[in-house]
Amino acid sequence: MTLLAPELTRIDGRLHLEGVALDTLADQYGTPCYVYSRAALTRAYREYADALAAHPAGQGALVCYAVKANSNLAILNVFARLGAGFDIVSGGELARVLAAGGDPAKVVFSGVGKTAAEMRQALEAGIRCFNVESAPELDRLNAVAGELGKRAPISLRVNPDVDPKTHPYISTGLKENKFGVAFDEAEALYARAATLPHIAVTGIDCHIGSQILDPSPFVEALDKILGLVDRLAARGIALHHVDIGGGLGIRYQADDAEPKVRDYLNPLLDKLAGRGLSVVMEPGRRLVGNAGLLLTTVEFLKPNAAKSFAIVDAAMNDLARPALYDAWHEIVPVVERSDAPARTYEIVGPVCETGDFLGHDRQLALAPGDRLALQSAGAYGMAMSSNYNTRPRAAEVMVDGALVHLVRRRETVAELYAGEALLPK
Amino acid sequence: MTLLAPELTRIDGRLHLEGVALDTLADQYGTPCYVYSRAALTRAYREYADALAAHPAGQGALVCYAVKANSNLAILNVFARLGAGFDIVSGGELARVLAAGGDPAKVVFSGVGKTAAEMRQALEAGIRCFNVESAPELDRLNAVAGELGKRAPISLRVNPDVDPKTHPYISTGLKENKFGVAFDEAEALYARAATLPHIAVTGIDCHIGSQILDPSPFVEALDKILGLVDRLAARGIALHHVDIGGGLGIRYQADDAEPKVRDYLNPLLDKLAGRGLSVVMEPGRRLVGNAGLLLTTVEFLKPNAAKSFAIVDAAMNDLARPALYDAWHEIVPVVERSDAPARTYEIVGPVCETGDFLGHDRQLALAPGDRLALQSAGAYGMAMSSNYNTRPRAAEVMVDGALVHLVRRRETVAELYAGEALLPK
Repeated sequence: MTLLAPELTRIDGRLHLEGVALDTLADQYGTPCYVYSRAALTRAYREYADALAAHPAGQGALVCYAVKANSNLAILNVFARLGAGFDIVSGGELARVLAAGGDPAKVVFSGVGKTAAEMRQALEAGIRCFNVESAPELDRLNAVAGELGKRAPISLRVNPDVDPKTHPYISTGLKENKFGVAFDEAEALYARAATLPHIAVTGIDCHIGSQILDPSPFVEALDKILGLVDRLAARGIALHHVDIGGGLGIRYQADDAEPKVRDYLNPLLDKLAGRGLSVVMEPGRRLVGNAGLLLTTVEFLKPNAAKSFAIVDAAMNDLARPALYDAWHEIVPVVERSDAPARTYEIVGPVCETGDFLGHDRQLALAPGDRLALQSAGAYGMAMSSNYNTRPRAAEVMVDGALVHLVRRRETVAELYAGEALLPK
Repeated sequence: MTLLAPELTRIDGRLHLEGVALDTLADQYGTPCYVYSRAALTRAYREYADALAAHPAGQGALVCYAVKANSNLAILNVFARLGAGFDIVSGGELARVLAAGGDPAKVVFSGVGKTAAEMRQALEAGIRCFNVESAPELDRLNAVAGELGKRAPISLRVNPDVDPKTHPYISTGLKENKFGVAFDEAEALYARAATLPHIAVTGIDCHIGSQILDPSPFVEALDKILGLVDRLAARGIALHHVDIGGGLGIRYQADDAEPKVRDYLNPLLDKLAGRGLSVVMEPGRRLVGNAGLLLTTVEFLKPNAAKSFAIVDAAMNDLARPALYDAWHEIVPVVERSDAPARTYEIVGPVCETGDFLGHDRQLALAPGDRLALQSAGAYGMAMSSNYNTRPRAAEVMVDGALVHLVRRRETVAELYAGEALLPK
């Protein structure tokens, strides 16, 4: 049985996250339940901080956690206490960052569809930078900042047209997708931005995709970006920071080749050395993915002629990644049992869709009532959850050493329709 | 421009649903906003009611709306007033039905993962029937009913192993999926059910899939089911109803061959005639799919060398079907314009995923600020929506002639994290 985080251990057959036995946690909070490890979050953040501290070009760098991966306030707060900034993609995420004690001066705002209201909200909060993704967005931002009598700090998100090689469905840096400004058009748009009265050109941004396990495309992208930085400098547009985006992958299976953060950062920092540019980065999944898991309970075992099913109480509404991306999550028993034969199971939820599965062809020894842990569920788990089939969303718990904190209570059914109303008689 | 519901018309270039111009509605309630037509809901229900009333075997039939397609209380209430029953798949859906004035005696409970708590809730409410999907579920239900001193009325959901031919990803009646009891095992399980003290065997159920446009697999499935009914009768197990499930498809594009309800039902009712069995059915999508649309606003137009993008304010969190199933929704302007050239656009949302698209390669004449209507969004639209990227879920509005009712207010950002808590200092 593969355990993908060092904070996850098995003691006398019982799975522990830090100092807490997960079966007791399932007893106390019920299932489905997301569980996060503060130590794992901290370790993941420190892997960035330490790599940056060890490199001359890493001084003054800002690690902006990509809130969309998991926006729970307690997680944001853990990162804020560690000194992190935040990469947001909506006004809602900005509100979360502020509610979690984040520093708006360390916030960068990405996303292709920023509304005027969101721009106002971010300007009033005093965020560090808007990552502008198109010419019309630049014009809108200039207008909104003008109305407020402010200058909006911006970088352009430039699309380096680099192929991240793996996982095309989450690649974002190619010419044919919706993100960013085309590389060939960026210089002209910078020149225009520099003339706008309510825009302060401060940096440049690129982001080539997600769950990237081979660091070489990052280097290729930065090369192109730095060439552009030089051309801009030559025409008098001096940038102050380079935002290298996020996208570094994590292990979902034991044999995934997860690069170390320093091996990803060092070649990039080498290229940045001596340029007088500060560095911003936007890791999401890498900071939270393997710091969380989803606990679920086996409701029924259903041996079929063609396939055997373990029907559990978590479903595609709780964890959409298998249905949406055909993603793999390691599934392990919370308490190992030796009194049932291991069989090959389809692990499926109660939702009435064939697409509602959590894992295919898993070898497990199971009995009804057993708890399972779906690993690597800290990123894009709770964040993408829904109330499909009128299922209240899961509780979220954070473990901190031997302490356990409920960081989001389970939704109630009544809450799910509190905003609805019948037609009058 | 294809309009897929008769309640949807264009008057002087302005799209109307019943008597309401949709641009005024977008002004009033903002976008993204789901809009439903009471007349279209009623017409869709009556298509069933009329076909049943016109056939001798349709007398006393029960149309159980499949709540999972769209569980808004106002929609449930419209159907309840028309005399509908409800097909539920969770305790949450039962609570919704009761809150909407539905009659529990007309409720059937489907789903592979019913918990003991959900069984208790349904037994106490006095539902009409449990559609039991496995042997261990039958045993649990017997035990729970015993604790309450009740007998649980059941049908077995029998898997006829019929190929619904189209759309394999939403077929549910094949041997290798998680649903139902295998056809070959059903007779033995019925025999056992008949011996259980807290189980009342009352019917049989099958459901072969969703969005089926060719009615012939329904006939094939019913033939197999009725053969089983006869064999059960021969051994003294007399059933009182046959639940023929749901799954009848709707048009998503103009040239989809949408069968009439009577052409789907009549061959089934012919087979049921004279048997003394009452009929239950579980339509979902067919009752609501083309009774709803999603209004959105164009935030930015972004002409790229490779592709042109229209970035709108609705996203995959609002309507997951394109991202999840690569589903097609017709997209039409709310107010037609003649002062912009028609171009081919990718219609995409603000969410930071390449998978966040609503439509590919659509010919539209657009300017920023224009409103678009995504048709056929009444089913599996709001029901599958999420708060991904901390986006509050859309408002829902129901039109009734010239009247407009807000049936679910837009979520606020603060509500999205009201249940969360930071770690103590």
